[in-house]
Amino acid sequence: MSGFKPVKSCPTTSARAGELVTPHGLVPTPVFVPVGSQGAVKALTPQELREVGVNIILGNTYHLYLRPGIEVIEHLGGLHRFMAWEGPILTDSGGYQVFSLAPLCRVTDDGVLFRSHIDGSEHFLSPELATQLQEKLGGDIIMAFDDCPAYGDKERVRQATERTHRWAERCLRSHQRREQALYGIVQGGTFPQLRRHSATFLASLDLPGYAIGGLSLGETKEVMAAMIEETVAFLPPNKPRYLMGAGSPDDLLEGVARGIDIFDSALPTRVARNGALFTRQGRRNLTNAEFKERDEPVDPECDCYTCRTFTAAYLHHLFKCQELLAYRLATIHNLRFIARLMEEIRRSILEGTFPAFKRSFLADYQVTDEKLRLSQKRKWTGRAATGARRFEVLEG
Amino acid sequence: MSGFKPVKSCPTTSARAGELVTPHGLVPTPVFVPVGSQGAVKALTPQELREVGVNIILGNTYHLYLRPGIEVIEHLGGLHRFMAWEGPILTDSGGYQVFSLAPLCRVTDDGVLFRSHIDGSEHFLSPELATQLQEKLGGDIIMAFDDCPAYGDKERVRQATERTHRWAERCLRSHQRREQALYGIVQGGTFPQLRRHSATFLASLDLPGYAIGGLSLGETKEVMAAMIEETVAFLPPNKPRYLMGAGSPDDLLEGVARGIDIFDSALPTRVARNGALFTRQGRRNLTNAEFKERDEPVDPECDCYTCRTFTAAYLHHLFKCQELLAYRLATIHNLRFIARLMEEIRRSILEGTFPAFKRSFLADYQVTDEKLRLSQKRKWTGRAATGARRFEVLEG
Repeated sequence: MSGFKPVKSCPTTSARAGELVTPHGLVPTPVFVPVGSQGAVKALTPQELREVGVNIILGNTYHLYLRPGIEVIEHLGGLHRFMAWEGPILTDSGGYQVFSLAPLCRVTDDGVLFRSHIDGSEHFLSPELATQLQEKLGGDIIMAFDDCPAYGDKERVRQATERTHRWAERCLRSHQRREQALYGIVQGGTFPQLRRHSATFLASLDLPGYAIGGLSLGETKEVMAAMIEETVAFLPPNKPRYLMGAGSPDDLLEGVARGIDIFDSALPTRVARNGALFTRQGRRNLTNAEFKERDEPVDPECDCYTCRTFTAAYLHHLFKCQELLAYRLATIHNLRFIARLMEEIRRSILEGTFPAFKRSFLADYQVTDEKLRLSQKRKWTGRAATGARRFEVLEG
Repeated sequence: MSGFKPVKSCPTTSARAGELVTPHGLVPTPVFVPVGSQGAVKALTPQELREVGVNIILGNTYHLYLRPGIEVIEHLGGLHRFMAWEGPILTDSGGYQVFSLAPLCRVTDDGVLFRSHIDGSEHFLSPELATQLQEKLGGDIIMAFDDCPAYGDKERVRQATERTHRWAERCLRSHQRREQALYGIVQGGTFPQLRRHSATFLASLDLPGYAIGGLSLGETKEVMAAMIEETVAFLPPNKPRYLMGAGSPDDLLEGVARGIDIFDSALPTRVARNGALFTRQGRRNLTNAEFKERDEPVDPECDCYTCRTFTAAYLHHLFKCQELLAYRLATIHNLRFIARLMEEIRRSILEGTFPAFKRSFLADYQVTDEKLRLSQKRKWTGRAATGARRFEVLEG
């Protein structure tokens, strides 16, 4: 059984506390879902994920389809058993990765023909196949296969949004394992009218949850906030709302304030591996010389294994030497920081103090410089963010 | 207080069980010491080292001197506190690394002038300085600074051996922190007469322990065994004997049978990161296609976290994807395999069944092909092993 129970709403913002009910247990919301693209949250064991307070993780159908192959994972008892993770799993449909990672993809109404970014081999994904693959993986929450539109051209975004709707209907029709919750994905780019239209259409399908796709791809924070508001207003209040691709502390707070229940992003784990660790004052780059002899934890307020055990100087040293332990200790810290932030957000909603908590957190937290943020984002999301999609779009 | 207590000897071989007494606790022997060159056993936390049964670890003075700098570690409370390891630590003197890693080194009786392999900067190490640096690091067992001779030319090996003796005397004279045990290093290359001479000379210094250096560098297993025998026969029976650089299961068994108490080697952790995992039948390369769908642990008899939690298929997948978790899970397994082997060896000595245990283990264990082993060894030990030392030796 899958479902969602709203528990308490904030009287002044759209923030809310709730609970996801899944076949692998309850998940308190709002929740951040760490990314385990290839069947592992990079560098961490399932045991460590539990220890930092992670309740649910994400697996990428695109990556697992290419390697080791969905049949291999099915043969080995499904994704939970394969990676020895007993908690809930959310799988994406592969849509976003096909558009952003594959060196070539050709879209028709039937589906997407694409080349593997690993060996160039040719593959085809359709709404039906993406649903079937996710059924074999056995995730608790699965995603409809969507056409993630490029920025800019309203007509192209409109066409991609309509295709996403037709594909959502096909995913729903082909979905067999009803204990899995199939979420729809709202598209519409940065066009308020298309967002409203997409949310309204998907709401009419009465799906168990709704994601907001096509954001956090390089647009400004203001545009992202506006698009979330335009979408959430047209989604049913008793269904969970999932903002795809957002994971910075300020994005999480702003998202929660606008009614988001679920977030996923590779950001906390990716920047950790680059030496950027979260503190209450902002991100700190541990490779900076100022940490060379710093005889205290990276974040003295943090209760994670890394901060309880090692000095910032030791982490600085490990990063300088590119010791494998660096990536892991940094990942532990960043995931614990985010998990604790979500716990505190939830508590403040339950206690009716969310706006004060948000204000106080953001007063201390120096948000990553907007220019730097956008350039990093574009670097990571590659051509999907710059609009330079090098694939053909054929109208079906 | 540092010391060694022999507990029981094997009646038919030279194997013996004992105990090292160190300021950071007791270490049952025979013992294998994992290498933590840069202040971390690659990929593992101190907590995991304890869990796999590691009692003592090794730190490299050469690496730590270059990065982060011995003064930094001293400022941060010494190596134990820096890396959050509360058990005993053995540090080497830097001698071997200077000769094998530095792009240029110039040896005189004073000491060694060398260039950093990291940035080419020029440095000087002498017996006195190597001792002082190790005192600042604060290891429980420290090593005399030695001249690790190249193969081949007996006259050159003889000169390096004599220099090693003069340097050992200087290390001993300059050694202040007497709670640290300063071990001498026997040299002599592959010349029985020089080995005997070196062991006899160092024994006369009445040091608290003796290492055998200059072996496990690419010579055959037969030559190594012969040189160990030639050395051990001339070392005092009440002092621990440490074979430097040996860590394969068969080397450990053969070394113990010849009276060795302590071993160190990067082999178990290094081959783990390359996907080679120990089993009772021999090393298995997890990247091989045969493991793609293997629905059982790498070593079904193993009690490590990796084998208790994951299938060989999962490890195969992680290695194929170069996921960071692969290196760590493999390292956990190999160190647990070796720790368990040492525990079993010790138990068999205490029970008087060591020769039978050794025979039975080696009957099942397929030793890595000798040709392959030597070529790998030469690859890893580089010019030190091939005799192509690209540095000048100036007679002092």
